[in-house]
Amino acid sequence: MSRPSPLSGFPELLPADRIVEQRVISALAETFELYGFASVNTRAVEPLDQLLRKGETSKEVYVLRRLQAEAESSDSGLGLHFDLTVPFARYVLENAGKLQFPFRRYQIQPCWRGERPQEGRYREFWQADIDVIDRDDLPGHYEVELPLVIGDALAKLPIPAMRMHVNNRKLSQGFFQGLGIADPMAAVRVVDKIDKIGPSGVADLLAETVDATPDQVKACLALAEITSDDASFADRVRALGVSDPLLDEGLSELVDVVEAAAADAPGLVVADMRIARGLDYYTGTVYETFMSGYERLGSVCSGGRYDNLASDGKNRFPGVGLSIGVSRILVPLLGEGRLAATRQVPTCVLVALPSADSRRDCDAIARRLRSRGIATEVAPAAQKYGKQIRFAERRGIPFVLFPGVDGAPPELRDIRGGEQDTVDIDTWLPLEADRRPEIA
Amino acid sequence: MSRPSPLSGFPELLPADRIVEQRVISALAETFELYGFASVNTRAVEPLDQLLRKGETSKEVYVLRRLQAEAESSDSGLGLHFDLTVPFARYVLENAGKLQFPFRRYQIQPCWRGERPQEGRYREFWQADIDVIDRDDLPGHYEVELPLVIGDALAKLPIPAMRMHVNNRKLSQGFFQGLGIADPMAAVRVVDKIDKIGPSGVADLLAETVDATPDQVKACLALAEITSDDASFADRVRALGVSDPLLDEGLSELVDVVEAAAADAPGLVVADMRIARGLDYYTGTVYETFMSGYERLGSVCSGGRYDNLASDGKNRFPGVGLSIGVSRILVPLLGEGRLAATRQVPTCVLVALPSADSRRDCDAIARRLRSRGIATEVAPAAQKYGKQIRFAERRGIPFVLFPGVDGAPPELRDIRGGEQDTVDIDTWLPLEADRRPEIA
Repeated sequence: MSRPSPLSGFPELLPADRIVEQRVISALAETFELYGFASVNTRAVEPLDQLLRKGETSKEVYVLRRLQAEAESSDSGLGLHFDLTVPFARYVLENAGKLQFPFRRYQIQPCWRGERPQEGRYREFWQADIDVIDRDDLPGHYEVELPLVIGDALAKLPIPAMRMHVNNRKLSQGFFQGLGIADPMAAVRVVDKIDKIGPSGVADLLAETVDATPDQVKACLALAEITSDDASFADRVRALGVSDPLLDEGLSELVDVVEAAAADAPGLVVADMRIARGLDYYTGTVYETFMSGYERLGSVCSGGRYDNLASDGKNRFPGVGLSIGVSRILVPLLGEGRLAATRQVPTCVLVALPSADSRRDCDAIARRLRSRGIATEVAPAAQKYGKQIRFAERRGIPFVLFPGVDGAPPELRDIRGGEQDTVDIDTWLPLEADRRPEIA
Repeated sequence: MSRPSPLSGFPELLPADRIVEQRVISALAETFELYGFASVNTRAVEPLDQLLRKGETSKEVYVLRRLQAEAESSDSGLGLHFDLTVPFARYVLENAGKLQFPFRRYQIQPCWRGERPQEGRYREFWQADIDVIDRDDLPGHYEVELPLVIGDALAKLPIPAMRMHVNNRKLSQGFFQGLGIADPMAAVRVVDKIDKIGPSGVADLLAETVDATPDQVKACLALAEITSDDASFADRVRALGVSDPLLDEGLSELVDVVEAAAADAPGLVVADMRIARGLDYYTGTVYETFMSGYERLGSVCSGGRYDNLASDGKNRFPGVGLSIGVSRILVPLLGEGRLAATRQVPTCVLVALPSADSRRDCDAIARRLRSRGIATEVAPAAQKYGKQIRFAERRGIPFVLFPGVDGAPPELRDIRGGEQDTVDIDTWLPLEADRRPEIA
């Protein structure tokens, strides 16, 4: 075959970049586990009727067909999941009898959307989600806790600072219904477009779709202007003179989130009344997160509380979750060289090969190092030592071990500085920083 | 929606079983990295023409179509990969200029095949592969090394013993061509069916498809009978009186594999002349592995040397690889309860909640424990302590910490034995075995 070319929208990483991705994913998993989240992996496919419940993204679903199915157009009825929330809600319903509630889970997997690729938007992309789902009722303190878990997880990564913009669906809906707008959810969806179409676009659309009067439009736009790092947003919202019990509930819940975050993770969270999130299923706090200097990527970590996503009629499982766009964060940072690994292979020691017939002896040396957790490989061929050293250099392998020949003791060379000395194979240890490749 | 039911062929794990899977996958990755293999992840999809190069499995490919594509039958030209070898060969060709050869990589990902599900065969399944690919030529010592890496990786897992059956494609082809059979590869494919159709079925099929004479059939069946733990198979093959340069090459290569394995991993490898592997692309050593007591599952780890899979006409990248069927091994063992986790959540300590308004104090205690790597969560509600202890018990969380109230010191309870004593939150450490869930 001829040399293949990359597929647009399906980013793949070279080995050194993949090491960065591995470290990021395992750091995220480690933080999530520190908070007691259990790992769940769901299958890649869901029945189409599940995937299409969410409306908005249905157009981007990849549908599966078996190549040898009878008719050209006979779909399997299955599609690739486009996020991890819908599969998780299905998993909870399917296994409700076997799970303990409240159920804290994390899930790190690829998702697929057939949309047009652009920076930060891919057809295959990794997400890292945490959710807490409870049976019947979900205490509000989880809406306070989850952004702090995410803040902790992201702060441990060597990436630009994050700013999480938080709002509450009850606040928006309550405000719009207190204003007298007949379809408050429609208004939420319009205000969600403010970053794309601007305030005047929103004004026109509000008049058009929900018959908003000029005064109502003015109040909606005034609300969307309000942001604060602390609880002061609540007074500013109240100063707009709208009153509604749902608005009060939303204000109180959002104050809880903002105050806890201001105490535990100063600078992480900002209350922002323009955050709406287009998806219908959110019913409480909603979150969007922007990476400093990379705001153009859009939100890199979004989510919210959903009361009715997982429900089988008899039982309701309300939840709250946040989803980190791992690919959306990493692919641009890797592309710009802002993140790199200290080397491109796990190998810490290359055992040089004095002659072709010494391979079994060299394998035995490698085995002794590996038994103490030191990643080791043996040189591929008994070339001149200079060539074997270059083999290590090209991969960033820090140490070359020369087996002793004719009774001479083995020697170890640090190829970065060139120091070389005799070594005791059974006691020598690399510095912790050299043991395995890390993010530079 | 109504309660969803599982999809046949798409196994999903409950949280405790998922912990086992996580431990197995990370143990495999750790061993592979100890031997210097770098991680690669390829996208889930390949162009159909890539996937169909392999012929045999084309019928099982899942093809993708965008739901909103113009015509019902307008495929995207993409299919889900059915193994990790074909994507890796494509990745090597695509990135050849940016990789260092010989290139050692491991890859642990799901694969998909639209085949009829049965025990050990799924529509979505995880594979863990290692391969070494070189440019132009690949030294034979990698065919010796790779089965030993796999043997080491599998021996570290708490699963039944493995037995790897090894043959060499040159040996089989050389033998058949030395016998005078005109299409030796066709004969290889026939002999590969011996476990399914038996020796008499093979005899009939050899006569039918490659015009084998009764003497040739007899020799083929005699070859397929030969197995040995050591190099003695070579004399038994030679005693059949067939001579061919390719046969000699195959014998010598297989002797190297078997002798090294007998020395380094006694009992792992058996030379077995009936192993053929149906796939056309193998050109040297071929491997199949059976799990003791679970031979009915078929081979749980297969592979071989392939000289021509990754080639763009100008450049050739010969390789050798082995693929562990992670799902094929784990799903049956988990289903039978032969593998289980010590608990179903990562949480080591549950901080009990004395009252609803003490949540922020309890969060602070949890933070202190987490800062020393101890996975901690705070109880969901200020129920009676008996209920909070049962919350921990149901999840297998080993410790409950009761914050001191009214100046009393905090106390820690090991809920397995019920011992309870005062504790210093900033110095206490759990036993290593209790720190995180492990395979029981």
